[in-house]
Amino acid sequence: MTTTSLIQSLSLENKGVISRIISIVENEAAESTLLENAVFKQSGKSYKIGITGPPGAGKSTITNQLTKLFRLQDKSVGIIAVDPTSPFTGGALLGDRVRMSEIGLDDKVYIRSMASRGSMGGLSRKAIVAGDVLDAAGFEYIIFETVGVGQSELDIAKAADTTVVTLVPESGDSIQAMKAGLMEIADIFAFNKSDRPGADAAIASLNSIMQFKVRQADEWKTEIVKTVAQENIGIADLADKIEFHRNFLLRTDKLNQLRMNNYEARTREVVSRKLNSEFWDDRSNDFLHQNLMTLLKKVKSPNELADEIYKKYN
Amino acid sequence: MTTTSLIQSLSLENKGVISRIISIVENEAAESTLLENAVFKQSGKSYKIGITGPPGAGKSTITNQLTKLFRLQDKSVGIIAVDPTSPFTGGALLGDRVRMSEIGLDDKVYIRSMASRGSMGGLSRKAIVAGDVLDAAGFEYIIFETVGVGQSELDIAKAADTTVVTLVPESGDSIQAMKAGLMEIADIFAFNKSDRPGADAAIASLNSIMQFKVRQADEWKTEIVKTVAQENIGIADLADKIEFHRNFLLRTDKLNQLRMNNYEARTREVVSRKLNSEFWDDRSNDFLHQNLMTLLKKVKSPNELADEIYKKYN
Repeated sequence: MTTTSLIQSLSLENKGVISRIISIVENEAAESTLLENAVFKQSGKSYKIGITGPPGAGKSTITNQLTKLFRLQDKSVGIIAVDPTSPFTGGALLGDRVRMSEIGLDDKVYIRSMASRGSMGGLSRKAIVAGDVLDAAGFEYIIFETVGVGQSELDIAKAADTTVVTLVPESGDSIQAMKAGLMEIADIFAFNKSDRPGADAAIASLNSIMQFKVRQADEWKTEIVKTVAQENIGIADLADKIEFHRNFLLRTDKLNQLRMNNYEARTREVVSRKLNSEFWDDRSNDFLHQNLMTLLKKVKSPNELADEIYKKYN
Repeated sequence: MTTTSLIQSLSLENKGVISRIISIVENEAAESTLLENAVFKQSGKSYKIGITGPPGAGKSTITNQLTKLFRLQDKSVGIIAVDPTSPFTGGALLGDRVRMSEIGLDDKVYIRSMASRGSMGGLSRKAIVAGDVLDAAGFEYIIFETVGVGQSELDIAKAADTTVVTLVPESGDSIQAMKAGLMEIADIFAFNKSDRPGADAAIASLNSIMQFKVRQADEWKTEIVKTVAQENIGIADLADKIEFHRNFLLRTDKLNQLRMNNYEARTREVVSRKLNSEFWDDRSNDFLHQNLMTLLKKVKSPNELADEIYKKYN
């Protein structure tokens, strides 16, 4: 299929085409840029939700329950599960199989796992573009589910309209969340497994820590929702809070602002890749390799060698 | 103090000077580059150990016990604890206080926590330079302790000579480690809390997964060490395995190779920053900002706008 016909056949119903376009983007195939441009221009109608948090906090379960709830409201849901997998595991993960049997057979649900295959480089970028593909296909909600607390997760969270951070009583206290840098990105905390001992104390502690967060007058006040995702408790409340945040963003015109910030960051990232790929040709690479011994012997520092190469080849 | 006199007074004994140089690097003060170059050229004698793994796996406890053991061997130890902290927490974390009372008062131990203060950008770079500072000061071992599983942690692991990944039975099974991309970077797995139920099964599972890892003939075979760090069990074994890995790297000349790879990556990163900072001046920034609406209105894609800016201002 040509790029044009792929784009023309892109729709909710056509999961094969969705998968094919995402694979082209994931593998950085030749036609990738054309497809990225086309889906970007057709995107913007979906509402994007990021669900992140430490391992074991129930992100997948919350995603699944939220998806089921959206389906009861007859909304379509696309899910991008970002998973920095090892290159030698390949294939499907256990969690995916459970998930597929629960929600994956629904016509108006699409699930895609994206893994890093050895290098995290570009993973968040590709996940964000995959979100554009689902957006262009017409899904009403897109959920980015990300494991971990690193830079990739923060980047993906920036591409979401509403970011939900899941925590559990076992995370110790909320210091865990602060350490992970999750406080800044959370629009809503879903305090999961909140029927367990220690949950109320942990929530109180999270609440008191949040008092210290400096907020401007027109800024969103982070909400806390108690959930027991396994038993579908608190999920409707979570969906309400997401809707509440969405209305806040629309009312204050912050939705356009945050999307524009995200697009700006994406543009800068493309420029940076172009600058680097133009700079590093055979000559500059050869020069670098010929001079690596000067670094090992501590004759030059990386800063000094970089200066030299930059002046010589720029 | 001038840059030169700071460098001249840099030594194990002079913790004030160490702290001051690291702070200058951390805050990217004017004299930062000069200091970075000077400490890099004096570095290379220390042995660098990275300790990473999921939250709650006992990284700090293992670091502390390993430090105590090295001290019994009269070796000096510098610790860089990398912690993507929230910007509104500031100050010392609880863990640091516990740690200080255990090992921090030792003359030949230096501990530094580095946090992200809101943006993870540059954190791994600064942590690696802080390692150079401790190296130049004369510490025999330098331990990078990092929380989380993101790109920053992987970058810091690349700057270590030996990377120890800590796991616990609660991590579910070893799928957790694979998902986190930790398999590729682990020279040694420290299976901590190995006295807990399920530990042996989890280790067996990890072992069987590792069978699938494709290794070249002269490649290091990842070791697994069982520890109960709280009770100081298995720490001597861990130290032996680290020494064993170090000897392997020296014997096969891989130590120089991995350090050279690390210096190469650092050089490329400096070039990339230079390229970006030269490109983004008032004119190109203005043009970008003036065109953000074309992204929001989906007239252009980030790729297309980046192309346009790149052609116009490069």
